[in-house]
Amino acid sequence: MEVITSLDNKHIKELSKLLVKKYRDQSSLFLVEGDHLVEEAFRSQALVEVITCEDEVSYQVKTTFVSYEVLKKLSSTITPQKVIGVCKKKEEKEIGKKVLLLDGIQDPGNLGTIIRSSVAFGIDTIILSFDCVDLYNDKVIRASEGLLFKQAIIRRNLEDVIHSLKEKDYVIYGTKVDGGIPIYTLVCPEKFALIMGNEGNGVRSSILDLCDMSLYIPTNKQVESLNVGVATSIILYEMRCKK
Amino acid sequence: MEVITSLDNKHIKELSKLLVKKYRDQSSLFLVEGDHLVEEAFRSQALVEVITCEDEVSYQVKTTFVSYEVLKKLSSTITPQKVIGVCKKKEEKEIGKKVLLLDGIQDPGNLGTIIRSSVAFGIDTIILSFDCVDLYNDKVIRASEGLLFKQAIIRRNLEDVIHSLKEKDYVIYGTKVDGGIPIYTLVCPEKFALIMGNEGNGVRSSILDLCDMSLYIPTNKQVESLNVGVATSIILYEMRCKK
Repeated sequence: MEVITSLDNKHIKELSKLLVKKYRDQSSLFLVEGDHLVEEAFRSQALVEVITCEDEVSYQVKTTFVSYEVLKKLSSTITPQKVIGVCKKKEEKEIGKKVLLLDGIQDPGNLGTIIRSSVAFGIDTIILSFDCVDLYNDKVIRASEGLLFKQAIIRRNLEDVIHSLKEKDYVIYGTKVDGGIPIYTLVCPEKFALIMGNEGNGVRSSILDLCDMSLYIPTNKQVESLNVGVATSIILYEMRCKK
Repeated sequence: MEVITSLDNKHIKELSKLLVKKYRDQSSLFLVEGDHLVEEAFRSQALVEVITCEDEVSYQVKTTFVSYEVLKKLSSTITPQKVIGVCKKKEEKEIGKKVLLLDGIQDPGNLGTIIRSSVAFGIDTIILSFDCVDLYNDKVIRASEGLLFKQAIIRRNLEDVIHSLKEKDYVIYGTKVDGGIPIYTLVCPEKFALIMGNEGNGVRSSILDLCDMSLYIPTNKQVESLNVGVATSIILYEMRCKK
């Protein structure tokens, strides 16, 4: 068993570039860290290679054995776990009936949390605007708890997508901090798209103008807004119960 | 107007100790950063001093003018805002009718999010177990969006508190990933305590044993659990709508 111990190893140097978005975009590959995420990647047939400082691994994919020092070079955490997976990016799938549109989500933790909740509450497809944070950012992947592999996620111009969905009779829901209908009165249609907006600014007004109606979550007056991951999850929970 | 430019200034050195939990505990003071949080602290009468590199501030409290370099020494962010507030810790208040108990929450972002949602959905008192993350951690304060100042929050032995609440006829709800009653069937009593648990392990079984009933959020089978900030917020939303 060959163990790579040199930080200058060509293959390791190539893989370490995947810590940077530009190279993830070029190669359509990304890294995940730790047993749980590597396992989820394997089950979803996204895993193409495993890098480990353990003596053996149980995945039927190309395996590269390295020293812990070399492994650290591929890690984005302070105390790396002992296995890193190289994964291929998600393939595009047809847009489903229950769609979540995200307009300019910036915080990777929020995007990861939203992905986790979207799977929990039966969303078929997430569509990201071009200015959302990179889906393959390590913090997004960690916060999603691996559920990134179980959700269909694509990136589009949201205006174009909304026009196309409207032609196919999807009901388009915007969200505002106030105004619109309270979510508990909602009767959920068979085909819908829910739009959630940026942490600071909410959904852009040019997009809100395209919506059939706006939803809001009733809260105490002294609270201006909820965390966007929380707000999205509450609405998805309510929509699931109403279906 | 005197402007402190020396990083060795005695007062600044004392204040910079507040970045460490031990000194926050000793002094019962903590720091907040940026206009929004300082404003919230002032409104809640928690603000005792403002440190700024601006020429003037509008708060009627002791103000210390410093250079940007000195201000950075008191900041826990990479690009500090231009005003920092020194605040006194919260005073204890009587426990209200709607109580949220947090058992071992570790992530400061989760605690901040939960505080924000607890105010939004009308919780009167949050009770932290002794092993929860420090309430005055800068990430907790930021994630709470200043709503920390609007919520009564205390730290207690949870077993003792639960026994005491039971004597006063509070209904005690535990939470589990599966089992118990689904939250949408809940009819919310006048006095209750909801217990949410640690990110990895949930509520300790010794505490679950003390509960009158367990609640769960129905989700798709392939999702083991939700983010604890999300789960707490969904339950509080549901309880508010049912009251």
